[in-house]
Amino acid sequence: MSYNLLKGKRGVIFGALNEMSIAWKVAERAVEEGAVITLTNTPMAVRMGTINDLAEKLKTEVIPCDATSVEDLTTVFERSQELLGGKIDFVLHSIGMSPNVRKKRTYDDLDYDMLSKTLDISAVSFHKMIQCAKKLDAINEYGSIVALSYVASQRTFFGYNDMADAKSLLESIARSFGYIYGRERNVRINTVSQSPTQTTAGSGVKGMDHLMDFSDKMSPLGNANADECADYCITLFSDLTRKVTMQNLFHDGGFSSMGMSLRAMNQYSKGIEEFIDENGKIIYG
Amino acid sequence: MSYNLLKGKRGVIFGALNEMSIAWKVAERAVEEGAVITLTNTPMAVRMGTINDLAEKLKTEVIPCDATSVEDLTTVFERSQELLGGKIDFVLHSIGMSPNVRKKRTYDDLDYDMLSKTLDISAVSFHKMIQCAKKLDAINEYGSIVALSYVASQRTFFGYNDMADAKSLLESIARSFGYIYGRERNVRINTVSQSPTQTTAGSGVKGMDHLMDFSDKMSPLGNANADECADYCITLFSDLTRKVTMQNLFHDGGFSSMGMSLRAMNQYSKGIEEFIDENGKIIYG
Amino acid sequence: MSYNLLKGKRGVIFGALNEMSIAWKVAERAVEEGAVITLTNTPMAVRMGTINDLAEKLKTEVIPCDATSVEDLTTVFERSQELLGGKIDFVLHSIGMSPNVRKKRTYDDLDYDMLSKTLDISAVSFHKMIQCAKKLDAINEYGSIVALSYVASQRTFFGYNDMADAKSLLESIARSFGYIYGRERNVRINTVSQSPTQTTAGSGVKGMDHLMDFSDKMSPLGNANADECADYCITLFSDLTRKVTMQNLFHDGGFSSMGMSLRAMNQYSKGIEEFIDENGKIIYG
Amino acid sequence: MSYNLLKGKRGVIFGALNEMSIAWKVAERAVEEGAVITLTNTPMAVRMGTINDLAEKLKTEVIPCDATSVEDLTTVFERSQELLGGKIDFVLHSIGMSPNVRKKRTYDDLDYDMLSKTLDISAVSFHKMIQCAKKLDAINEYGSIVALSYVASQRTFFGYNDMADAKSLLESIARSFGYIYGRERNVRINTVSQSPTQTTAGSGVKGMDHLMDFSDKMSPLGNANADECADYCITLFSDLTRKVTMQNLFHDGGFSSMGMSLRAMNQYSKGIEEFIDENGKIIYG
Repeated sequence: MSYNLLKGKRGVIFGALNEMSIAWKVAERAVEEGAVITLTNTPMAVRMGTINDLAEKLKTEVIPCDATSVEDLTTVFERSQELLGGKIDFVLHSIGMSPNVRKKRTYDDLDYDMLSKTLDISAVSFHKMIQCAKKLDAINEYGSIVALSYVASQRTFFGYNDMADAKSLLESIARSFGYIYGRERNVRINTVSQSPTQTTAGSGVKGMDHLMDFSDKMSPLGNANADECADYCITLFSDLTRKVTMQNLFHDGGFSSMGMSLRAMNQYSKGIEEFIDENGKIIYG
Repeated sequence: MSYNLLKGKRGVIFGALNEMSIAWKVAERAVEEGAVITLTNTPMAVRMGTINDLAEKLKTEVIPCDATSVEDLTTVFERSQELLGGKIDFVLHSIGMSPNVRKKRTYDDLDYDMLSKTLDISAVSFHKMIQCAKKLDAINEYGSIVALSYVASQRTFFGYNDMADAKSLLESIARSFGYIYGRERNVRINTVSQSPTQTTAGSGVKGMDHLMDFSDKMSPLGNANADECADYCITLFSDLTRKVTMQNLFHDGGFSSMGMSLRAMNQYSKGIEEFIDENGKIIYG
Repeated sequence: MSYNLLKGKRGVIFGALNEMSIAWKVAERAVEEGAVITLTNTPMAVRMGTINDLAEKLKTEVIPCDATSVEDLTTVFERSQELLGGKIDFVLHSIGMSPNVRKKRTYDDLDYDMLSKTLDISAVSFHKMIQCAKKLDAINEYGSIVALSYVASQRTFFGYNDMADAKSLLESIARSFGYIYGRERNVRINTVSQSPTQTTAGSGVKGMDHLMDFSDKMSPLGNANADECADYCITLFSDLTRKVTMQNLFHDGGFSSMGMSLRAMNQYSKGIEEFIDENGKIIYG
Repeated sequence: MSYNLLKGKRGVIFGALNEMSIAWKVAERAVEEGAVITLTNTPMAVRMGTINDLAEKLKTEVIPCDATSVEDLTTVFERSQELLGGKIDFVLHSIGMSPNVRKKRTYDDLDYDMLSKTLDISAVSFHKMIQCAKKLDAINEYGSIVALSYVASQRTFFGYNDMADAKSLLESIARSFGYIYGRERNVRINTVSQSPTQTTAGSGVKGMDHLMDFSDKMSPLGNANADECADYCITLFSDLTRKVTMQNLFHDGGFSSMGMSLRAMNQYSKGIEEFIDENGKIIYG
C-alpha cells in the first residue's frame, strides 16, 4: 500500500545488508512511497550481503562506503546528488558494530582500540555523515535524518556491552547536531529506538532469543518488527513531522514505558496460578 | 494536500472551540486524509465557539458532552458509532482547564475544590473517556488514542500552576491505560507534547507572549503551530505508527532537548556582542 | 552509629504505622542523628498500628491527622512547633492508599470516587501539607521536604493500578512546589523512589513476592530495604544536600537504570545453561 | 564542621588543579570527614596548578597520571593502596577537556582526531579507571565511584560542543559499569550533574558569565557552588547511600527540573512590569 508520502523526495540509505535488515525494508518502503534513493554499505558488506539485488530491484545504485571515512562519505553524497538529480531530503543511518562483542571481550575487560572502533563505527560515523553532508550543502531545507538506536542507550542490558555506550553517544550526537542543522537549515535529526529485531546483526548475540521473548512479553503490543520500523521511518521522512527534532523516539510496542507486565511476570514466575482469583478469573492490573 | 492516510477510518475529536483550536485543525486534516469524524465539546463551548460551523463544513455532527461525565461520554461513543457506521479508529483528547489559573490563585494558595476540578477536567477525563470506550468496545483493534500535553508536565514553568500537575497525571494515564488497552486490543495511547500554541485557551495566560518568544528562540525549528500539530497527529492515527504506544512525543521544534540556544541567549543577554569574535563573525556552538 | 547529621534539627514524620514502616525507620534514624521529631498518622492507623510505642521510645508525641484535611495539617504544624520549640527543618511524607486496589477494581474498571480518594490521599495531601506549612511559615529556611515514591510513576507495573498515576502526580507536585518554596525560602522538595519494600502496606498486594524477587534480581545491588532508605533520607535532611531540589531520586539498588540483568534473565529463561561458555564459565555482559 | 562521615575510608581524587577546582574542595572535605586520600592529575596540570600545596596541606602525595593511560592508572591505584594502607573506598573523576573547544572548532566543523581526544580524556578515561581498579581488585566492597557531569549531556547548550557528547558517554559508562561492579562487588557508580561552576576549566568558555547568570536565575536555589558540590559528594561516598547506583544525580539548585522561572523571564523580557498586577504586587506562578 502506498500513500505517496515521499513523492519527489531523494534519500540515502546506509546499512542494508540483506532482506532481514531494517535498512533494506526502509529502502523498499521509501521507494514504494514515491522516493528515489541510493544505497550504501561497506565494501565487505556489499560482498557478503545481497544489497546489489536490492539496488537492482529498486533501480538504483550501491555506493560502497566505509562510514568512518570522510572521503567515502563525501563520495556518497556527491554521487547520490548526481544520480538522484538534486539535494537529498532524507538519510537513514543503520550502522553499528562492536569488535569487543565479536571478540567476546566482557565490559570489564574491554580492549580500548576496539572500544574506539565501536564508537567510531556506531556513533561518530553519524557525526561524520552529517558534517560531511552539511559541508557539501547536500541536504535540502526541511530534510530529515534518522539513526536507529536501542533502549540500551538508557538502561543497561547484560551482554549489550560497549554498544550501549555507543548508542548513548549516537543519541547525543543527534541532539547536538539537531540543534545546529535545525537552526541553520531546518533539517531535523532524530533517533528511532527500535525493539530488538531479528536481523543478521542481532542474530549473533548470545541469549538474543530470550531477550526478544522477554521484550515481546513486556511490550503490550509485542516487539515491533523491521517492516513496522520501516513504516515508522517513512512518517519521519515525510512532511508531516517537520517540527519533530532532537528526539529519541521509541518504536517498541511500549517496552520502554513498562516496568513489568503480567505476561512477562507469568513467564518469570513460572506459573499463572497466583494471578488467578478464587473463581479462576485472571487478575489484570 | 492529501495522502489518504486515514481512508476509511472513523474518529472522535474532543475539544475544538474555534478555528484557532488544535482540535479544529486535527478535525479538518483528518477529513482531508479520508476519515469520517464526529466532534464534541461542552454545551457551553458549543455555544461560545464556532464548532457548529466546523461540523457543517465537515458534514458531521457536534455531540455535546461534559468530558467529566461518564454518561455523556457514553453518549458520544454510542452516537459516534451510529453516525459513522462502525467502531472508532482514533480519538483526540484536547481538553484542559484550571479554575485556579482562571481565578488567579497562585500555586501556594490553591483552592482544593478547584484543584480537584483541574485534575478531573484536564486529566481524569482522559481515563473516563478510555474506560468508557473500552467498556462499550467502541474502539477498533489497532485504534489510536492521542491526548495533547505540554512540557510543563516534566519541567516547571512559572505561572503554569496546577495545570502542570494535571498534565503529569494525563501522561501517566496514557501509560497506564496504554498497557491495558494495548495488551487486550492492540489499541495504542500516546500524548503529544506540543509547543505553546496561540489558541483561545492559551491567549488568556499572562506573560504568554514572552513565553512563546522564549520557546520559539530556544527551539532550533521554532515553535510548532496548530497546523503542524494536526499533521503530526495524522501520522499517529495512521497505520504507519502501529507499534508506538505509551509515549509522550515532543512536537516542539526541539525545545524539549534544548538547554540554551544562541538566539535565546542573545535576547537574554541583551546583545549579540559577546558572541561575535574579533573579526565580527558570529560564534556558533 | 550516629554522625550527628541532624543535630539541632526539628522534623515531622508522616506515615509510620509499625516497625516495618519506612517512616518508622526514618523517625528512629533522625533521632539517632540528633534531631527532635513529632509523629503523625490517621486516627485509625494510630489505633491499628504501634506508633504510640515508637513515640514513647523516641520520647515524643503522636499528633493524629488525616492528611487530606487542611485543618488537621494545620494542627500538626502548630503543635509540632510548640513541642519542638521552633520552626521545622525537615518533613517526611510517607502516605499512600488506593481504595480501587483494596476493592480489587481493575484499571479499566475504576470507580471514580475511589480514584479521587487515591489521588487525594496519596498525592494532593503532599500539596496540602506543604501549602499549609508555608502559610504558617512553619519551615525554616534551607528546610528539606521528602516524599516517598515508586518507579511505577514512570513505567507501568501490572497491578499497581491507579497508585501509578498518584505517584506521577506526587512527583509533579514536588517539582511545582519545589520551585515556589525554593525561590522564596530556600526550602528543597524531593521525592525518593524506593525499591519495593516489605511493609504492611506492600504486603497486601498480590504477586508482591514475585515482583520483589524480580526487582531484587534486576538490581545490581539488590533491593534497598527500609533501613537503607532511612539512611538515605537522613542525607537529604542534612545540610550536605542543600542544593538538591525538584528531583526524583532513585534509591533502588540500580533497578531504574536496568533493562535486563543476567540474574533476572536466568530466572526468566529457567536456566543458566545458555550463559555458560564451552568451558563452563559464566558469560557476563 | 565535620561529621566523621568518611572515618577510616581511603579515597583517590582525580582532577584537582587549584583551589577553584571542585576536586580540590572534595579532597579537603573528604579529609575533614575523616578520610585519607591521594591526589592525581596530569604532569602538566601538576606543574601549572597548585595541587602540590593541597597535598602538603592534606599530608598526602600527588601521583602524576595521564588518565588515558592504563599504565599510569595502574600506578595510581597501586601507589594509593600502598600509601593509604589498604583498598580504596571512594574515587572522584573530575576530568574533562575538549581540544575542539580550545581550538574554536565549531560542532559542524569538528576535527575528528580532536573529537577522539575529547572522548578519550573526558569519558573513556572513566572506563579505564574503573576497569583498571577492578582488575587490581583495588576497590573495597561497598565502595563508591563518582564522576562529575553536566546537564548538557541531556539537553543541548550552544557552545558546549563535543563536550556534551563526551558527558553523555560518561553517564552511559557509569550505568554500564555500575551494573557490572555492583553485581560483583557492591561497588556503586554515579555521576553528579553539577551547576556550571566558576573554575579554571569553566572560566575560559566564551559567554560563560551569561550562562551562569541564566542558570542561576532559572534555579530556585541558585547555582550550586564547588563547596556545596563537595558536601554532596561526601554523602555519596558515605555509608548512607549504599543502594544508590547507576544514577545521574542533579546537584544544580533545581535547574534541571525548570522550564522557565519568573526571575529568568524577567531578565529575558527586560522588565518586570507585566508580572505585576494592578496593585503592584508581583504575580508568582
